[in-house]
Amino acid sequence: MDRAKALEIVREQLTDHRYQHTLGVEQTAVKLAKKYGANEKQAELAAIFHDYAKFRPKEEMKQIILQEKMPEELLSYNSELWHAPVGAYLVENEVGIHDRDVLQAIRYHTSGRPHMSLLEKIIYVADYIEPGRQFPGVDEVREVADNDLNEALLLSIQNSIIFLVKKKRAVFPLTLQTYNYFIHLKED
Amino acid sequence: MDRAKALEIVREQLTDHRYQHTLGVEQTAVKLAKKYGANEKQAELAAIFHDYAKFRPKEEMKQIILQEKMPEELLSYNSELWHAPVGAYLVENEVGIHDRDVLQAIRYHTSGRPHMSLLEKIIYVADYIEPGRQFPGVDEVREVADNDLNEALLLSIQNSIIFLVKKKRAVFPLTLQTYNYFIHLKED
Repeated sequence: MDRAKALEIVREQLTDHRYQHTLGVEQTAVKLAKKYGANEKQAELAAIFHDYAKFRPKEEMKQIILQEKMPEELLSYNSELWHAPVGAYLVENEVGIHDRDVLQAIRYHTSGRPHMSLLEKIIYVADYIEPGRQFPGVDEVREVADNDLNEALLLSIQNSIIFLVKKKRAVFPLTLQTYNYFIHLKED
Repeated sequence: MDRAKALEIVREQLTDHRYQHTLGVEQTAVKLAKKYGANEKQAELAAIFHDYAKFRPKEEMKQIILQEKMPEELLSYNSELWHAPVGAYLVENEVGIHDRDVLQAIRYHTSGRPHMSLLEKIIYVADYIEPGRQFPGVDEVREVADNDLNEALLLSIQNSIIFLVKKKRAVFPLTLQTYNYFIHLKED
């Protein structure tokens, strides 16, 4: 699918603010794909569609999670997590993108997972550091992402877990698994 | 088992510093048992024996974990976690204490677990706040423990997770499950 068509489709699904964020993620993802040798076209596509389901009604997302037999555990955690797997489903079934690498990068862009692919890492990190993001610690992650994608990913996950735990919010188990995976990688 | 005998047994297993810590945990656990209506004798016994296995050689602990079919996952995490389940095993099989409540309080005193018993909570919190403990945030947990044991437990786990994640150390999944359990309890 060409970029203009993809942007046209996704623009209808998003607020202006979220559309600008999406353009930032795309720009960052393509830059990271160049640096780390991933397929730039896949990075572009996954970035453009990563938040496709962001504004779907909770009830619709819940139905899709149940109907598609996604992990039901999701429903016990913040609905903020749902748009990633639901997005992968809708991008395949409504938009007609069947590239599995792209779909997996959308599916895991909020939780991460152990053994993430290069493309999955790129989308996760690009979503965290795109130029529109402003929060404590983001500049450090931007710098690290220039040299070490795994380390940038680990830093993002560390920041996210600490943020959630300080706020007394639940942490999705897969996020902790991803964190532990990267910690164990460093130890080996 | 009477207190003097228990202390005699445990003293042989511990350094002086750890024995003093044990006395602090006992004092705090009995105080919490009085306040929250747990069995004081069980609190005393579980506190005295909670670190029984603390100084066992790693290799011995590893053998017990494998031989007793404890979760093998333990072995991928810091050996600091091992002395709790191994302690429960040794307190039963070397010391001859068969009180399941006491053994479970020893078993879960470092990880916690969802649906902890009152005694388990008391030992977990007492271990964290006994008078010898000095670290940032401990006074707040001491104050909270005077009024709300669940909240004190949640605060201890929050502090522990944040401490580990800041240090880039792995977090045992059961610890996160315990954290999420108490967060979900508050939400319901």
